[in-house]
Amino acid sequence: MTLPSPLTGVVPPVCTPLTPDNEVDVASLERLVDHLLDGGVDGLFVLGSSSEAAYLPDGHRKVVVDRVVRYVGGQVPVLAGAIDMTALRVLDHVRAAADAGADGVVVTAPFYTRTHPAEVARHFRLVADRGALPVFAYDLPVSVHTKLDADLVLDLAAEGVLAGLKDSSGDDGGLRRVVLGAHARALPSFAVLTGSELTVDSALAMGADGVVPGLGNVDPHGYVRLYRAALAGDWARARAEQERLCALYRMVAVGDPLRMGASSSGLGAFKAALHLRGVIDCPLTAVPQVPLSGAETEQVGKHLAAAGLL
Amino acid sequence: MTLPSPLTGVVPPVCTPLTPDNEVDVASLERLVDHLLDGGVDGLFVLGSSSEAAYLPDGHRKVVVDRVVRYVGGQVPVLAGAIDMTALRVLDHVRAAADAGADGVVVTAPFYTRTHPAEVARHFRLVADRGALPVFAYDLPVSVHTKLDADLVLDLAAEGVLAGLKDSSGDDGGLRRVVLGAHARALPSFAVLTGSELTVDSALAMGADGVVPGLGNVDPHGYVRLYRAALAGDWARARAEQERLCALYRMVAVGDPLRMGASSSGLGAFKAALHLRGVIDCPLTAVPQVPLSGAETEQVGKHLAAAGLL
Amino acid sequence: MTLPSPLTGVVPPVCTPLTPDNEVDVASLERLVDHLLDGGVDGLFVLGSSSEAAYLPDGHRKVVVDRVVRYVGGQVPVLAGAIDMTALRVLDHVRAAADAGADGVVVTAPFYTRTHPAEVARHFRLVADRGALPVFAYDLPVSVHTKLDADLVLDLAAEGVLAGLKDSSGDDGGLRRVVLGAHARALPSFAVLTGSELTVDSALAMGADGVVPGLGNVDPHGYVRLYRAALAGDWARARAEQERLCALYRMVAVGDPLRMGASSSGLGAFKAALHLRGVIDCPLTAVPQVPLSGAETEQVGKHLAAAGLL
Amino acid sequence: MTLPSPLTGVVPPVCTPLTPDNEVDVASLERLVDHLLDGGVDGLFVLGSSSEAAYLPDGHRKVVVDRVVRYVGGQVPVLAGAIDMTALRVLDHVRAAADAGADGVVVTAPFYTRTHPAEVARHFRLVADRGALPVFAYDLPVSVHTKLDADLVLDLAAEGVLAGLKDSSGDDGGLRRVVLGAHARALPSFAVLTGSELTVDSALAMGADGVVPGLGNVDPHGYVRLYRAALAGDWARARAEQERLCALYRMVAVGDPLRMGASSSGLGAFKAALHLRGVIDCPLTAVPQVPLSGAETEQVGKHLAAAGLL
Repeated sequence: MTLPSPLTGVVPPVCTPLTPDNEVDVASLERLVDHLLDGGVDGLFVLGSSSEAAYLPDGHRKVVVDRVVRYVGGQVPVLAGAIDMTALRVLDHVRAAADAGADGVVVTAPFYTRTHPAEVARHFRLVADRGALPVFAYDLPVSVHTKLDADLVLDLAAEGVLAGLKDSSGDDGGLRRVVLGAHARALPSFAVLTGSELTVDSALAMGADGVVPGLGNVDPHGYVRLYRAALAGDWARARAEQERLCALYRMVAVGDPLRMGASSSGLGAFKAALHLRGVIDCPLTAVPQVPLSGAETEQVGKHLAAAGLL
Repeated sequence: MTLPSPLTGVVPPVCTPLTPDNEVDVASLERLVDHLLDGGVDGLFVLGSSSEAAYLPDGHRKVVVDRVVRYVGGQVPVLAGAIDMTALRVLDHVRAAADAGADGVVVTAPFYTRTHPAEVARHFRLVADRGALPVFAYDLPVSVHTKLDADLVLDLAAEGVLAGLKDSSGDDGGLRRVVLGAHARALPSFAVLTGSELTVDSALAMGADGVVPGLGNVDPHGYVRLYRAALAGDWARARAEQERLCALYRMVAVGDPLRMGASSSGLGAFKAALHLRGVIDCPLTAVPQVPLSGAETEQVGKHLAAAGLL
Repeated sequence: MTLPSPLTGVVPPVCTPLTPDNEVDVASLERLVDHLLDGGVDGLFVLGSSSEAAYLPDGHRKVVVDRVVRYVGGQVPVLAGAIDMTALRVLDHVRAAADAGADGVVVTAPFYTRTHPAEVARHFRLVADRGALPVFAYDLPVSVHTKLDADLVLDLAAEGVLAGLKDSSGDDGGLRRVVLGAHARALPSFAVLTGSELTVDSALAMGADGVVPGLGNVDPHGYVRLYRAALAGDWARARAEQERLCALYRMVAVGDPLRMGASSSGLGAFKAALHLRGVIDCPLTAVPQVPLSGAETEQVGKHLAAAGLL
Repeated sequence: MTLPSPLTGVVPPVCTPLTPDNEVDVASLERLVDHLLDGGVDGLFVLGSSSEAAYLPDGHRKVVVDRVVRYVGGQVPVLAGAIDMTALRVLDHVRAAADAGADGVVVTAPFYTRTHPAEVARHFRLVADRGALPVFAYDLPVSVHTKLDADLVLDLAAEGVLAGLKDSSGDDGGLRRVVLGAHARALPSFAVLTGSELTVDSALAMGADGVVPGLGNVDPHGYVRLYRAALAGDWARARAEQERLCALYRMVAVGDPLRMGASSSGLGAFKAALHLRGVIDCPLTAVPQVPLSGAETEQVGKHLAAAGLL
């Protein structure tokens, strides 16, 4: 399909259901896509952080993007993460995404290696020039360990290198700077998407175009209601929906920090919730993440019940 | 060949010469291997940080390990970096290294994702259990953004998961803790290798087994003399050699920090030096790194001349 | 005066005007207080980051709090920063603030030393128990290098240890978590104040009680209009005011990053603006900060003019 | 007394014994000084990190420096930490140290505030110009959150601003760069002191002038033997002594990380050891640090016994 310009609305980063053997569970993945489309989402983002892209070997990544693009069949645009250390490695993933028929790619600054703003710019230019897909910059300092500079992002947008920004930095002052900068520079087709689960109403009030919430796997209907309320200018309703989702989001902390890290806990909670809601068959996260215990999974159930989702 | 147990001596991380089109320059790579073997090195480490592993797509990585293993023909052991975000992705690289005939792999803790000591341990166990090669842990906090804990490393060594440690953390107190711990736990076949260019004599005096110096590309003979002097207990000679190499190492700062990052500058200087010494055809580093200017390259030449290498 | 419970509204962190000899310029300080009160602010916060507290010796700090409390004469509450490394040192500043007649103190977690959540809690309890003033926790990770945990803050609020939070972390998801937690725990007298200059409208929409904007020195009237619009539920007007202030805020980047740090540039710009607006006599920041050049000061003037403030 | 130029040898950072009421225990402090002088140390450093300077209010700091300088009576030089955020605050501490008769001060780069190399240089120049004592730069990135650049340190040494460097960065490659740079620039009176407990033999082998080990409180005789062996070129003996001290140093980890931070554990262990050895009356660290439990203190005793110190 043609990518809307700018991309707007709710574009959840799609979890990757796995079998107990750590293979991609395609049937569950397709049910998850149905669940999200039923929620009314405006696009899908596969192979992002919530998709456990960092844990998926290339074979798994290929299955995910191939199957989701084919299954969606153009109903909504599909973005694919092309998460790797530097430009040439990223371009291999961009080619795979293009071959599968994805509508755009999401790309971070270089990581693992030490980098520099001039190199970050060159990196995005290379990916845009040599790849065959629109590029969304992915600002995720918790993983990449550098913050994308607002002026650099806007310069690359003005050059036509970037089609949008997925801002998962948690820095809403910075997000606003990009929104206002895009307006000041007359870049109406540049999409600013927040990766926050918790400040979607305020990001939209600032002028962001859309939202890419990991928690949207669990409750796509909620984020779609939130987005539509904001679009309609019904900020009280948007806030109420957001506050319900903030409470639900606390599920990410169910995992015991003595036993596991934040990824195991947070993504484990999303998958446990999808399992409890009957969407996916197996709640396991990819190795070497640590599985939730039974008691921790029960806590996830309580969060779902409190949010009216069980 | 059979990997010595423990691995000892000078094991340089081999630079990856590139063509102006950013392809692997195999002829230059083979000349570089000759240069290193001529220097008397005890092993080679391909696809590490100094090899620009973070910049090389899988196709380039495969060419490098295939060609170097074949070219070396068992004269010295060849380790290969299997640098990727988590265990399953790493295992793809381990398989490629095993297929090529490498003698061991060098593996970091998970990166990009948030992790936890329990997950780090599980990660290394998976790589060792499912891979077919001895595993050296690579401690490189500047890239990985976590430090490997000495007790965790020793526990994994005692379990047989790890064959050695490449410590590029710059924390020589921590290195010493591993050396003394390996001795206390009677782990004589566990290799502790420092990744420092600047404190090799002292690491060896502490009981480290070997050294993996990026600068060893430029002056393998110097590091071999240093290692042999230390082995002979001639610490005065070791120190003198080390101090000469410390002066030479200052070449890594030739690049203008307004124009480029530390990787472009440091690896650019190593490659410029190899080019000036006639070892490789083209001094370019991989994109999106920024090339050294003519004036910066001249500075590299002055460093070489001062060290008696031109 | 009695501190409102909770404290609400616009409470700017008051800049500390200095003489060319780096002494406190009391006449300018009093004119600045007049300027802020004329703007309609609801309180004043002396000896915070925008006040250059880190640069002021205890003698200067004492002059500032003494003179401002006396000059304000109870028209609005005056909070005083008690910025120091750990509890006993903080308590010396709390005593000075109490002696001067301040209405509350603003205190960070321990810094410089390595700390722990249990020690952070003990620190705040000591300061509250032994000090004679209400305590506001100051979350400023850029300076303190730890983030205050939302649950810890709420626990201390529930215990009566904390009267409020000044959140300058830039993490509006975290701010919201505290706001919602204070509501869920029925802590209506606990004040949540944002330290952001750029997301005040959204923080207030989330339920924050007030704002502590450094830029409020330059344009107190603007922040007061913004706050009052939000209070009246006129979010369109609040947003428009906020966006004007976002543009004005860009003055903090006038300083050349090759010559100076972010503090010299940002606080230098605020003081230059106050000087250009005729409020203070001398725009110098405290040593060892680097003064703005004439050209940089001209840029500040352009920002003022564009915002209608010259 | 006249400060040796350069300062050399073992200069332990003196712990600050406290009463159960958190007051300075002067009698214990004097016994600790006796213990250190009996060990043969070459100088004393009060009010450093191991002295809990970050926890001591100015009144306590004054008691410490006054009493130690008076008690030592010129037998060895006494350095005093002047630990505060920026130059003018530091200068207040420098004046107190000069009034007490200290022989030099130890000063970090600015902290808490955001800073810049130009401001760091200006900071040290101000402290040296306006203070009446020789200035030693204190490189402690774990506390200060910036690393002192080797070239900046050497430039300030060449200007006469700095009398020495206490390097507690743990980066022995950087330490060596300063040592070699001081030699290359012919700065024979500039003292390079390592703050490491674990790599003293190698730092001395590189050419460092002395050592400032926190563990030297517990076993000053050991560090003096180590220093003298190194001075005599008996590296085998130096290494054996160092390895014994490395084992002893593991006491710093006795504290349960679920209950306390690294400062509580490490400084608590040093004080528990001094208490168990009969040097000080009370092992408590300053509030808000968490005290060691009985079981944790027993572990300290086992470390002492294993090192032959009980």
